[in-house]
Amino acid sequence: MRKLYLLACALAASIALATLPAPAALAQTTVERWGRAEIALPGPSSGNPFMEVDLSATFRQGAQTVKVAGFYDGDGQYKIRFMPPESGDWEYETHSNRAQLNGRKGKVTATAPSAGNHGPVRVHNTRHFAYEDGTPFWQVGTTSYAWAHQTEALEQQTLKTLAAAPFNKLRMAIFPNHDDKNEPPRFPFAGHPPKAWDLTRFNPEFFRHLERRVGQLGDIGIEADLILFHPYDKGYWGFDRLPADVNQRYLRYVVARLSAYRNVWWSMANEFDFLKEKTMADWDNYFQTVQREDPYNHLRSIHNAFVFYNHTQPWVTHVSVQSGAIAEDFERAVLFRDVYNKPVVYDEVKYEGNFSRRWGQLKPEEMVLRFWEGAIAGTYVGHSESYEDPNGMVWLAKGGTFKGSSPPRLAFFRKILSESPPEGLEPIDKWQNHPFAGKHAQYYLGYFGLGTPKDWPFVLFKTGLQDGMKFRAEVIDTWNMTVTPVDGTFEIVKRDNYTFADKNGRSIALPGRPYMALRIIRIP
Amino acid sequence: MRKLYLLACALAASIALATLPAPAALAQTTVERWGRAEIALPGPSSGNPFMEVDLSATFRQGAQTVKVAGFYDGDGQYKIRFMPPESGDWEYETHSNRAQLNGRKGKVTATAPSAGNHGPVRVHNTRHFAYEDGTPFWQVGTTSYAWAHQTEALEQQTLKTLAAAPFNKLRMAIFPNHDDKNEPPRFPFAGHPPKAWDLTRFNPEFFRHLERRVGQLGDIGIEADLILFHPYDKGYWGFDRLPADVNQRYLRYVVARLSAYRNVWWSMANEFDFLKEKTMADWDNYFQTVQREDPYNHLRSIHNAFVFYNHTQPWVTHVSVQSGAIAEDFERAVLFRDVYNKPVVYDEVKYEGNFSRRWGQLKPEEMVLRFWEGAIAGTYVGHSESYEDPNGMVWLAKGGTFKGSSPPRLAFFRKILSESPPEGLEPIDKWQNHPFAGKHAQYYLGYFGLGTPKDWPFVLFKTGLQDGMKFRAEVIDTWNMTVTPVDGTFEIVKRDNYTFADKNGRSIALPGRPYMALRIIRIP
Repeated sequence: MRKLYLLACALAASIALATLPAPAALAQTTVERWGRAEIALPGPSSGNPFMEVDLSATFRQGAQTVKVAGFYDGDGQYKIRFMPPESGDWEYETHSNRAQLNGRKGKVTATAPSAGNHGPVRVHNTRHFAYEDGTPFWQVGTTSYAWAHQTEALEQQTLKTLAAAPFNKLRMAIFPNHDDKNEPPRFPFAGHPPKAWDLTRFNPEFFRHLERRVGQLGDIGIEADLILFHPYDKGYWGFDRLPADVNQRYLRYVVARLSAYRNVWWSMANEFDFLKEKTMADWDNYFQTVQREDPYNHLRSIHNAFVFYNHTQPWVTHVSVQSGAIAEDFERAVLFRDVYNKPVVYDEVKYEGNFSRRWGQLKPEEMVLRFWEGAIAGTYVGHSESYEDPNGMVWLAKGGTFKGSSPPRLAFFRKILSESPPEGLEPIDKWQNHPFAGKHAQYYLGYFGLGTPKDWPFVLFKTGLQDGMKFRAEVIDTWNMTVTPVDGTFEIVKRDNYTFADKNGRSIALPGRPYMALRIIRIP
Repeated sequence: MRKLYLLACALAASIALATLPAPAALAQTTVERWGRAEIALPGPSSGNPFMEVDLSATFRQGAQTVKVAGFYDGDGQYKIRFMPPESGDWEYETHSNRAQLNGRKGKVTATAPSAGNHGPVRVHNTRHFAYEDGTPFWQVGTTSYAWAHQTEALEQQTLKTLAAAPFNKLRMAIFPNHDDKNEPPRFPFAGHPPKAWDLTRFNPEFFRHLERRVGQLGDIGIEADLILFHPYDKGYWGFDRLPADVNQRYLRYVVARLSAYRNVWWSMANEFDFLKEKTMADWDNYFQTVQREDPYNHLRSIHNAFVFYNHTQPWVTHVSVQSGAIAEDFERAVLFRDVYNKPVVYDEVKYEGNFSRRWGQLKPEEMVLRFWEGAIAGTYVGHSESYEDPNGMVWLAKGGTFKGSSPPRLAFFRKILSESPPEGLEPIDKWQNHPFAGKHAQYYLGYFGLGTPKDWPFVLFKTGLQDGMKFRAEVIDTWNMTVTPVDGTFEIVKRDNYTFADKNGRSIALPGRPYMALRIIRIP
């Protein structure tokens, strides 16, 4: 019945289109669902197209409508990018204040997504993430602010490093970073550094380069957490203190160009509170602009230095936090989960490295510990690296290669996560110094951190448990990356008001080393 | 000039009043500023005055107007209570839908507050409290839910206990507590227990008793944190599941009766999320009702079980939280300060006692530790007691006397707080495991908790410091309640990017016991 109705609608639409005078042959494009269709239209190049030409398109499938902004790409070329949210045919019509660009019609056919295309990442089960097709997204992030402002060779090296790395999300800045000292090869506005910018004209080449890199990240399964503003310009180029109207135009242009990339996340800022020229109302406003302009509702958050943004605001999809201490233990990390009822990502928890600054001198063991403690709290953590280098080649700043030894352990960590229940890891027994997360009566992942227990009495918190349930167990060495099955099975009986225990009172032997974990899985 | 103008206004007001036909002699009352004037008016007792008679009064001083709701107190008596927010004359006029109660005029003269009357407690310096006259309020709270639903003898005993105790805030419930088993002597509605209530009629005797107790708490310097709803009725009397209109009437009646008591705080609930009949929108609504009806803007918050209310809402003046683990270390406790930018009170952090339930078995040392850790985080903590008793005499439930040994240590703690800077204790160096709070370059209070250091190198975080500054120090044993001055003074020099240290590299000797603190004070 529903299919027949849709078919009828499609026929009706075709007929209607056939009777209209088309300005050109009806454009047809085929892409995957959540792929990217690009409609290129020639248009006026006189005057200032960035300021004077409006362009958008409405895409329709049955009752569903998606309105998408187009953008000027220089040299008389206009583009509209579309990420089909559903498979099937999408008919579109353009809208413009220029006749040449107005009323153009066409069709985008979205095929089923290919293997590896799971759609954009969404909030899942309140405090977790999943791709739109339901595949869990276990966030294991890293940060390299200016990696896409380097030489071609270095950027290729970074992509090669990332392709072999455990990270599935990368925080990266759109504006270049003056702290890095070297002059970036491209700038977002027409004009010349340091400050002779024509703020009414974007530099399309800058954005084409950025998009290529975002696309390449997507190809290797990495979400691009795009940082829209940051304070590391310090007025040198002035991108940290643009006039209000330029900031709005910039946000709209970025969203028009990039929102059709399914692996985009929007981060309003890095260390927003260090951008002293902007008020809290400005940040609210940027969020609202991005939310309004992005037809696909990509994830949105903002990253702090010392002042926290109000992540309870409805336009914040998930929590992105810098805190130097919060991921040191799971009972700290869980607290923000309680506050926000959204996914919590501790994007900056200090970095692995040997910098003289206190934020950049974690030992690799300390870096890895934070990911585990975060996971036991039902939250997510971010990595980066700050090892001194005579040539300033620091992953955090420019990418390149890793010097540290946390990445292989984080690959192991991610593998363990990916074997966990798709609902996400939920803390098992809050406020009781109980280092387990998982799914009651099904799956328990425990982590002892710096503790060096020699055994663990087989005792589980009561929720969902019944006498006679059976479990198997594995001892996990998170640093040495081993998983060792424990012999035999454990059958539980009620022990007290709060717990069930192995009926024979058995314990699991542990090696008395730090960084050990336990996995306990119910036997059906 | 200002005085002359006020005098002129007063004369004008007198003259105007003199020319109006007064229904009776102009009532005159004199009370202290922040005291309580009560205007009693006879009125109709027929029908249902609670439902049918509206009464309010407008108090005026110069350009300032305070609109106050009156209430029916039974037996044909109506009352209007007024807490003058400023000294001087306040002229009033009543408003009613009954002629007998309408247009009544009079004057309340507010004299300067007497010693010990500092006004209501307000938010101070963003994350702290002070009385309205600027005197710091160092919150050291306790909880006794149903102490005001006991026998006269027991309630007198509780008051005697409190008068000698360190606590300056008491959480107490307005509705009785069915968990306590014994039948309370009074109920808030007319009718009979368990459920034969006339929900259209309040029981004035119940409220007169409650007010007397709130007033007595005020007399001994204790703020009454009045819990407006709680889940411990479980439908027995049904006060946890009243119809929506009754809840609103109840809130208005309580606020009308009690808001003129300067020591009142409003707590929308204890463990709000256990009241399954109420939605989050209901709680928002209760807050808004209380905010609208209370002319004095007393402090407002709400207490949780496992779900957290959104304390960023503008009608929440301070954070009131139950968390079984957050006050165990200052680096946890500081996190909610960062989130909320409001005063943070950890009203329930588990209780001192020997209950079988995990929330009621803290050792006294653990109870006291939480107050200190909270203070070092720039936050505030609450106490209660749950020691088993053959007669059910538990402080948490009914009051009486203390069985525990934390109160003298909390008296000592409060004394130390009261000697701290009036701006409140602010964390000195966040995220660096630095257990000091205070005021940069002036006052440092450190606490080592369970740590047992044998010395402390004299090293201070850099903010505000300069070479040559001198300090004195005291070693504080928070459990044994001693303050021992350290011999000599310490002169600092810059040590590195982050710290200044004693120029001779000296340390302060510590006894290698837990629960030790340090106080370091700048010598001018």
